[in-house]
Amino acid sequence: MTLSMYQASVPVLVRALKALSGVLHKGAAFARERNVSPEVLLNTRIIADMFPLARQVQIATDMAKGAVYRLAGQDVPSMDDNEATFEQLQERIARVIGMIEAFTPAQIDGSEDRSIVLKLRSGELTFNGQDYLLGFVLPNVYFHCTTSYSILRGEGVPLGKADFLGKA
Amino acid sequence: MTLSMYQASVPVLVRALKALSGVLHKGAAFARERNVSPEVLLNTRIIADMFPLARQVQIATDMAKGAVYRLAGQDVPSMDDNEATFEQLQERIARVIGMIEAFTPAQIDGSEDRSIVLKLRSGELTFNGQDYLLGFVLPNVYFHCTTSYSILRGEGVPLGKADFLGKA
Repeated sequence: MTLSMYQASVPVLVRALKALSGVLHKGAAFARERNVSPEVLLNTRIIADMFPLARQVQIATDMAKGAVYRLAGQDVPSMDDNEATFEQLQERIARVIGMIEAFTPAQIDGSEDRSIVLKLRSGELTFNGQDYLLGFVLPNVYFHCTTSYSILRGEGVPLGKADFLGKA
Repeated sequence: MTLSMYQASVPVLVRALKALSGVLHKGAAFARERNVSPEVLLNTRIIADMFPLARQVQIATDMAKGAVYRLAGQDVPSMDDNEATFEQLQERIARVIGMIEAFTPAQIDGSEDRSIVLKLRSGELTFNGQDYLLGFVLPNVYFHCTTSYSILRGEGVPLGKADFLGKA
């Protein structure tokens, strides 16, 4: 086995999103059991000027989706950010997992030196493929998955590290 | 450029730890400015049964340190977990960065199939090198770096995503 851009992206991102899905399932179950409105959890934040749970999930999925399309040299399909329930967030995660899994190693491998340009509100960011994946995509995906976990964990949802790590 | 086990570990882990160091510097400065005892921040948790900030930093550094020694097939030097100040945590981070940077590509590359056995309180975990790095080390390092960030951010320390991502 030799490490490749495909191996460091597609299965890694799919695993992170499946784990995030499991974390959200436990959050939804907690809301049902405690008779808490799910919207309360979806709007919970670490602090007032950080994004709430629902937006953390939208960003995590966007980061993962953008990664594989950009590494493959394709335009990134955009999604409306209008999920307002756990079920809708689960649908978004499942849809993005399907999109990611549709890529083959031949489409992603060899993208180490591909030029990637991100247009952000703060300006353009330019990377090569390897730095984009290792220095931007993976830390960002894990940042937003961890923050989603911490928001729910901080509200008392019974979660452990294994829920965050997920399964291969 | 071709992605390698060295490229996906040493520079990635060093960058994450340097960013963590920067986040902690901002936490220490915040404590000074607000006349808050640093120990208050170092003992802050997301919730009572999660580890406090100081322990999050210890685990992040341990995960990063363990990764390079194990991938290189060497015994992992242990460290006392006795840091009680921001300065001591900075020393630990700097020490671990030095240990990680001492490894060469020749020592890490080709470790995709190396058998890695972790002895945890819950039992043994066995991985190959690639799955250990991508499915255990990187998510765990980012988990504890994000949690450190969120603890300080939640207390009002002025931090942004760029502080978490750090610089190549």
